[in-house]
Amino acid sequence: MKESYTPNLYIALTHYPVVNKNGSTIASAVTNLDLHDISRTAKTYGVRSFYVVTPLLDQKELVEKIVSHWLKGPGSIYNPKRGEALELIRIKNSLDEVIDNIRKNGEGSPKIVVTCARNSHRSINFGKFREMLKNGKPYLLVFGTAWGLSEDFITGADLILEPVKGNTGYNHLSVRSAAAIILDRLMGNY
Amino acid sequence: MKESYTPNLYIALTHYPVVNKNGSTIASAVTNLDLHDISRTAKTYGVRSFYVVTPLLDQKELVEKIVSHWLKGPGSIYNPKRGEALELIRIKNSLDEVIDNIRKNGEGSPKIVVTCARNSHRSINFGKFREMLKNGKPYLLVFGTAWGLSEDFITGADLILEPVKGNTGYNHLSVRSAAAIILDRLMGNY
Repeated sequence: MKESYTPNLYIALTHYPVVNKNGSTIASAVTNLDLHDISRTAKTYGVRSFYVVTPLLDQKELVEKIVSHWLKGPGSIYNPKRGEALELIRIKNSLDEVIDNIRKNGEGSPKIVVTCARNSHRSINFGKFREMLKNGKPYLLVFGTAWGLSEDFITGADLILEPVKGNTGYNHLSVRSAAAIILDRLMGNY
Repeated sequence: MKESYTPNLYIALTHYPVVNKNGSTIASAVTNLDLHDISRTAKTYGVRSFYVVTPLLDQKELVEKIVSHWLKGPGSIYNPKRGEALELIRIKNSLDEVIDNIRKNGEGSPKIVVTCARNSHRSINFGKFREMLKNGKPYLLVFGTAWGLSEDFITGADLILEPVKGNTGYNHLSVRSAAAIILDRLMGNY
């Protein structure tokens, strides 16, 4: 049994800059179930805020509409538990805006930790990051959509978290599943 | 670092008998992303087969159509890695049909292990089940959709796995996220 703790952790789901299957940098579309699944996981593990990052106006409006349906609309009557999770969502144009927003809490700039399905010589393992989170300082854990965060973005991060590997060579989890496994490995208590 | 191993594990996602929010037994609709996410997680952790259980003809046809798109249709060209995961899917009318199908592998009947978001006095913990899986015998881990497996079904199972709990009181993960966390806790190697 690992000890229970609630770190000063924020997460971001990034729709730009990410790469497509050919490696070109794109802005991806928002997926409804990413919002639901990742906010429910974030709420389960005590994440401070779940930032959804997209510079596209129509995509920001879509996220607002979904969140509003469950916080104030018919969804809030049908299943109030869903709103408790979705209210963690903050919509931002860029990671810079996310960092500014966290800084406003008065605890300084967060360390930026990126997730990636590939190994890097800079990768830190889950045990190490779990220990670091216990220092109470703010951390921002960044997830990419589509074929992952752009190489430039990964290179510029403070830390790179090791990829989630199972016990086969298959390495193609959905971002929803990867986020669930990663938050459980970092904060799970069992 | 836990040791790496590939157990004799099958999983089933059940759409009947499950309960709705009022506790009535229903047959739920199939969700496309359940098939994608859970098959990708199953493939990552070496699960033998992923059974999708529904007695409804139109729902079985829907699952067949989705799987076929990624195994033989345009999806197989667009992203062949997706087919490698979705080919783990077997469609069955009932859990009895699933058990019969596993029995045909000649290793006897699987032990039925149910997942549930509530505690039970019979619950076994993750460490205990992880140890049991090392005996090489077949196990069938059953996930419910909607508001979970029916009480009768849970009571009749061989074993009940403890619920996934985070570090808050919030206990409403999606089945996609719960399946990812549970398979990582049982077979993860990090």
